[in-house]
Amino acid sequence: MAAPVSPSLQTAVPLDQIRYNDQGLVPAIVQDYLDGTVLMLAWMNRESLQRTLETGETWFWSRSRQEFWHKGATSGHRQRLQAMRYDCDSDALLVTVEQLGDIACHTGERSCFHQVDDHKQAPPADTLSQVFGVICDRKAQPTPDSYTCKLLAKGDNGILKKIGEEAAEVVMACKDDDPEAIAGEVADLFYHTLVALAHHDVDLKAVYRRLQERRR
Amino acid sequence: MAAPVSPSLQTAVPLDQIRYNDQGLVPAIVQDYLDGTVLMLAWMNRESLQRTLETGETWFWSRSRQEFWHKGATSGHRQRLQAMRYDCDSDALLVTVEQLGDIACHTGERSCFHQVDDHKQAPPADTLSQVFGVICDRKAQPTPDSYTCKLLAKGDNGILKKIGEEAAEVVMACKDDDPEAIAGEVADLFYHTLVALAHHDVDLKAVYRRLQERRR
Repeated sequence: MAAPVSPSLQTAVPLDQIRYNDQGLVPAIVQDYLDGTVLMLAWMNRESLQRTLETGETWFWSRSRQEFWHKGATSGHRQRLQAMRYDCDSDALLVTVEQLGDIACHTGERSCFHQVDDHKQAPPADTLSQVFGVICDRKAQPTPDSYTCKLLAKGDNGILKKIGEEAAEVVMACKDDDPEAIAGEVADLFYHTLVALAHHDVDLKAVYRRLQERRR
Repeated sequence: MAAPVSPSLQTAVPLDQIRYNDQGLVPAIVQDYLDGTVLMLAWMNRESLQRTLETGETWFWSRSRQEFWHKGATSGHRQRLQAMRYDCDSDALLVTVEQLGDIACHTGERSCFHQVDDHKQAPPADTLSQVFGVICDRKAQPTPDSYTCKLLAKGDNGILKKIGEEAAEVVMACKDDDPEAIAGEVADLFYHTLVALAHHDVDLKAVYRRLQERRR
């Protein structure tokens, strides 16, 4: 069962202010709440928008089947509503969700937007997750010249020594109040921390979930 | 002048495979390359898509004015193409950009998707940026009971001591090979590092830019 929807979420979008097109539809962009990945674009009519706000799970209007579509009702890959916003001219929706199973696309890919030229590529949206993805790729398919591979090969003691070192460099850059150095040293600290996560098979999303839980 | 567009970017979307609607248009979601924020949804026809891929800046078709629209040509808020993907049924585009001036909306807001109920709210897309936003809000409008405010009030020595402590706790959690503890301690380390950034008025985006530059 879905959790009760908060009253503020239920009124996030005023149903009658939305400018539906001549088919009574509005495009809805669905975005992952943890890393901002755009999962899909689908269409809502007034009633599917209302159902989404009332139930806290996404409902669309299927243009091909001409019927309501409760996302994940068959596959189990439902989407739990986290937030909804509409754009400056009220003719598009941005739907922020927790994607159950972390798969939105009927092809089994995480995101429907996985096609580039003639191959598949669906990197996550934010910089830290992209870097983490590259580190995990290096771990899965080592290349001898890669700094990341060399560091992973050293194991905990090598990786964790770097975390101590980079943390000390962040401290020094802050004491120097040097914005360029601070940005660079924090980038180093984040990168090496991501290597430690990859080494221990801990997903960055687990870290994001912790941070999201504390915000509530 | 825009930088030359890489050959792989120029062919990211096969113009003739896209399924344009009966007006010859396809919806294009525009997303920030650093933090995944959805900036706007606009429409492209075949030629505006081609112009975007060839010039490395976004071109749309304005449905209200029935003319090509080179985004930012007047305001200067142009969008530099970083990546483009299309979805599983080839009827929507995801356009990843560097947004010049960090403003995409004609209202002056960063994102067109800033409307929630009757107020404005356009948080960035990824978890770390959201947490950073909350910390910056606390700094701008202190509330006495907030842990973040108390920490900021202690200044560098209080904040940096915590970075050292949290880095040590990440090291210990890794040595214990305890996934739950690792996720929790990395969340703590990231949070306290974000407080240090806010204290020194260094934007998290500066850190993301460093990480992106190193990926190239």
